[in-house]
Amino acid sequence: MNTDSIRRPVALTMGDACGIGPEIIAKLFREPASAGCFVIGDVDVMRRAAGFTGGMLAVARIERAADAWVVPPQCVPVLQPDGLPPGLLEAPLGRIDARAGAAAAACIVQAVSLALAGEIAAIVTAPIHKEALAAAGIGYPGHTEMLQALSASSGEAPPVRMMLANDELRTVLVTIHLSLRKAIDAVTFDAVLQTLRIAHRSAARWGQPAPRIAVAGLNPHAGEGGLFGDEELAIIAPAVQAARAEGMDASGPYAPDTVFMRARNAPGHPGEFDIVVAMTHDHGLIPVKYLGVEEGVNVTLGLPFVRTSPDHGTAFDLAGSGRADAGSLRAALRMARQLSGLV
Amino acid sequence: MNTDSIRRPVALTMGDACGIGPEIIAKLFREPASAGCFVIGDVDVMRRAAGFTGGMLAVARIERAADAWVVPPQCVPVLQPDGLPPGLLEAPLGRIDARAGAAAAACIVQAVSLALAGEIAAIVTAPIHKEALAAAGIGYPGHTEMLQALSASSGEAPPVRMMLANDELRTVLVTIHLSLRKAIDAVTFDAVLQTLRIAHRSAARWGQPAPRIAVAGLNPHAGEGGLFGDEELAIIAPAVQAARAEGMDASGPYAPDTVFMRARNAPGHPGEFDIVVAMTHDHGLIPVKYLGVEEGVNVTLGLPFVRTSPDHGTAFDLAGSGRADAGSLRAALRMARQLSGLV
Repeated sequence: MNTDSIRRPVALTMGDACGIGPEIIAKLFREPASAGCFVIGDVDVMRRAAGFTGGMLAVARIERAADAWVVPPQCVPVLQPDGLPPGLLEAPLGRIDARAGAAAAACIVQAVSLALAGEIAAIVTAPIHKEALAAAGIGYPGHTEMLQALSASSGEAPPVRMMLANDELRTVLVTIHLSLRKAIDAVTFDAVLQTLRIAHRSAARWGQPAPRIAVAGLNPHAGEGGLFGDEELAIIAPAVQAARAEGMDASGPYAPDTVFMRARNAPGHPGEFDIVVAMTHDHGLIPVKYLGVEEGVNVTLGLPFVRTSPDHGTAFDLAGSGRADAGSLRAALRMARQLSGLV
Repeated sequence: MNTDSIRRPVALTMGDACGIGPEIIAKLFREPASAGCFVIGDVDVMRRAAGFTGGMLAVARIERAADAWVVPPQCVPVLQPDGLPPGLLEAPLGRIDARAGAAAAACIVQAVSLALAGEIAAIVTAPIHKEALAAAGIGYPGHTEMLQALSASSGEAPPVRMMLANDELRTVLVTIHLSLRKAIDAVTFDAVLQTLRIAHRSAARWGQPAPRIAVAGLNPHAGEGGLFGDEELAIIAPAVQAARAEGMDASGPYAPDTVFMRARNAPGHPGEFDIVVAMTHDHGLIPVKYLGVEEGVNVTLGLPFVRTSPDHGTAFDLAGSGRADAGSLRAALRMARQLSGLV
């Protein structure tokens, strides 16, 4: 079933049952913003989570994604994948548990399957725990690698890039979880050009067919003409030229210290660019997080569907307390809707 | 003469006579905020600059710093150093000229002499041009090196660090104008500890004897326990420990992507730290500039006096038009007053 795209619901995967995922999802379902969303998870775990957050909140099992639209307000629709491990409620909160890891993985598998079938508009993933996945024998270190593998067509996983975004700024990263030394080595012509292609194509999918993409340099003052490093001249500028030759509105490299400010899109401050491509994790993340970490949403670009996630982990120390803040998950849901054309 | 510190005036050096320095200074002297300031420069150049900015603005030659207090409003007090090169008004606006370079240097020499004599509270430097200095045979590439050399005691120039600051955030940089590769090599135990000492001592001078200094890491997630680089474990953490052993309230290394947000001091968002020490130019400058470049003030820490400057250059293309924005110079003056205890 491939319903009208405007009506396709958004799926939230439950995440690690021993972390804060289920309860921040429950919090979100107390808000009108959750209309047209459903959880892929375990019904009993979600019922328990609803209890942690206080007040009345019903949980209803649904059989298909489209049923997300027919549940009443203050009710959490849960699609439970077949074959979730038994004993999930016995897995102690705030602890690494193989059952929780296996369940989290099963929910992700189900979500990708629905996304590839066109039944959902986007996936918002609640936090999972690396070690719980490993304890369950799941061979992926995190969401991104798992989503890539599950999206592989003819055996080839699609190249992806991390975008961190808020209402003011969208930055796409050429490198992420590497030491700064290794990140410099990973800034290659191919890596920069592929980042530009992924950013460009992704923007078309969220309704911006000709995004203005600024490319930040790697070195201070973008190398100051070669005085402070030659990566701009040797690698980044040629990649920008190649992207332009492919028809993209790419420009730069610009001095890293001012390009994010120039791209910032705020009331009274129209941004000069729609996307900034950053060479390193922190060049890109510092400005997005500066105004408040709860507003930074993690987006995986390059997958054949929209995927966002809050920018925090399982917070085991808070699990079960009902005190975890749903702000980042709320922002992730809002961003998922924006990127899939639902708003 | 060493007047009461509260009454010591602030000196603004004219900068390159062919750039926008004189006219942005003239703009500032139309504002009440200029009370207690004077210009170290050329009287004729300042008269011409007053004309560029439109409306009535008198220029009066003064003989000593303290006279800054006795000129009427809408009048620019100018202390003219002896022996300025003749023909300064003939140096074409917007061009590199040896006479302008020589005059700019003479003004800086005079300012340092007054500062070391205790006659002024602070120096705010308008932009100079490297190549004009070179054309005049001045052997310094910029302000910082010249100020260091002029402040040398027993032949030894004091170590300095660049701070970029606005009302929300103060970041002090371990490395500045180096390629990112070389900057990584320049992050040594000694360089980090010296930066901490300079930041700590400087804060005492501006009235914060026990500043909370956060140290940002170099690598993503501050190295994630060695997984993404070992500089945090091998270099930065030991330097922080050494600083703590010397009695400083230093902590870290923290993940670069969130430490600036945590230090941000804004209405409703009290900062957790007073100063952030950043390993690289762009880690430190991206967050300070993010909210608007005109608010970022460049401060040289480690000199025996307060020195600030606007965060832009001579803007030769605008010189003489009266259109250059005085915002950054205004912010530099405000910061100079804050750092010297005048406000």
